[in-house]
Amino acid sequence: MTSRPPAVVLLSGGLDSATCLAIARSEGFAPYALSFRYGQRHAPELAAAGRVAAALGAERHVVASIDLGLFGGSALTADIDVPKDRDGEEIARGIPITYVPARNAVFLTFALAWAEVLGAFDLFVGVNALDYSGYPDCRPEFVSAFEAMANLATRAGVEGAGRFRVRAPLLSMTKAEIIRTGLALGVDYGLTLSCYDPSTEGAPCLRCDACHLRARGFRDAGVPDPALQQAGRT
Amino acid sequence: MTSRPPAVVLLSGGLDSATCLAIARSEGFAPYALSFRYGQRHAPELAAAGRVAAALGAERHVVASIDLGLFGGSALTADIDVPKDRDGEEIARGIPITYVPARNAVFLTFALAWAEVLGAFDLFVGVNALDYSGYPDCRPEFVSAFEAMANLATRAGVEGAGRFRVRAPLLSMTKAEIIRTGLALGVDYGLTLSCYDPSTEGAPCLRCDACHLRARGFRDAGVPDPALQQAGRT
Repeated sequence: MTSRPPAVVLLSGGLDSATCLAIARSEGFAPYALSFRYGQRHAPELAAAGRVAAALGAERHVVASIDLGLFGGSALTADIDVPKDRDGEEIARGIPITYVPARNAVFLTFALAWAEVLGAFDLFVGVNALDYSGYPDCRPEFVSAFEAMANLATRAGVEGAGRFRVRAPLLSMTKAEIIRTGLALGVDYGLTLSCYDPSTEGAPCLRCDACHLRARGFRDAGVPDPALQQAGRT
Repeated sequence: MTSRPPAVVLLSGGLDSATCLAIARSEGFAPYALSFRYGQRHAPELAAAGRVAAALGAERHVVASIDLGLFGGSALTADIDVPKDRDGEEIARGIPITYVPARNAVFLTFALAWAEVLGAFDLFVGVNALDYSGYPDCRPEFVSAFEAMANLATRAGVEGAGRFRVRAPLLSMTKAEIIRTGLALGVDYGLTLSCYDPSTEGAPCLRCDACHLRARGFRDAGVPDPALQQAGRT
């Protein structure tokens, strides 16, 4: 039994969401971690999510199966190549092909459904507006609009038991700041996987946008990436 | 090939969503029907959705599998009895146990994801505020808030290709008005199934809230329910 209030934390197995889980715990919440099997290429990230949830003391870790691949339209779910070796400027420009239509909206509504069952009012999501790689659903306007919708969509909203808050603590951090924050909270980034196109064993490709952004983050933070050290790749 | 603009229509197999599909078609849209396998007890409604989609000329009918039952908390997905033989006053009072947490929000975000892939901007949903049986996500405030969120969650919203509209044409209709509207548009309600707790063969229980609301609707419209006539139950 715990007297900490529950919070649902979206957990991809990547660096950002692992940090977000650590922040939720440090703020006194009992974190319930939620991951998705959504037809993505990078299923090894679910193994990473399980490792992170266990290491950071999540109350529960649930993997929901959803079917975004059914609609196609993204390199992460459809049969389209993940772009490789783009420089920072290319990454920053426009919405990439790895964008999954309405993904964060779908993930957050699942988080909302679970929160309602748990009696939780706080939804943690590791979206980030600076390094956001052009995803529209990583912007602060989206986060606010989702919160407004959540409070009208639910029994808790109608009955006035509380107000849902979408908590996006990484929103205005740089990748380096996220890494420093996580390290201070004891996150082992060696457990995380950021790559869009890993090997079946879960080794990062080191060439996709996510790998490039992660490498730059560790470089800017002035610390080595433990995931690369473990793989003997530094 | 069609020159009609595409629209995504949420289709449960019930009376309301069948009417909504007919309205979308009558307004000149090419309807793409979307149903869900979400751990609900009433799987026969998916067979009804398929019949309705075919009869009303949907361009495509997709059934997405999602996992709301994972979170529990509703008589429609968890192991809780569906309430029977409640009168109109009981039905109108409060949020029933058949409420599925955040269900319409989840369904609409999937519709949004598909719409984005299709290049559609119109999402039709058969929610109804009068006969809504106490579901918070059937209120006009929810519909407006979802629309605002949708336009911030998506590539189309960012790039300004258009604005998403959540179209809820049944919102302020009585059940009898819905039935009359559908009949005028050629809906065969004998194909639909409204029951929360049908037999495995798809026969309605005639005792749950949905069956009672449907029976009252046909009574108020002054027409017989063809689904009951077919089943020899009138």
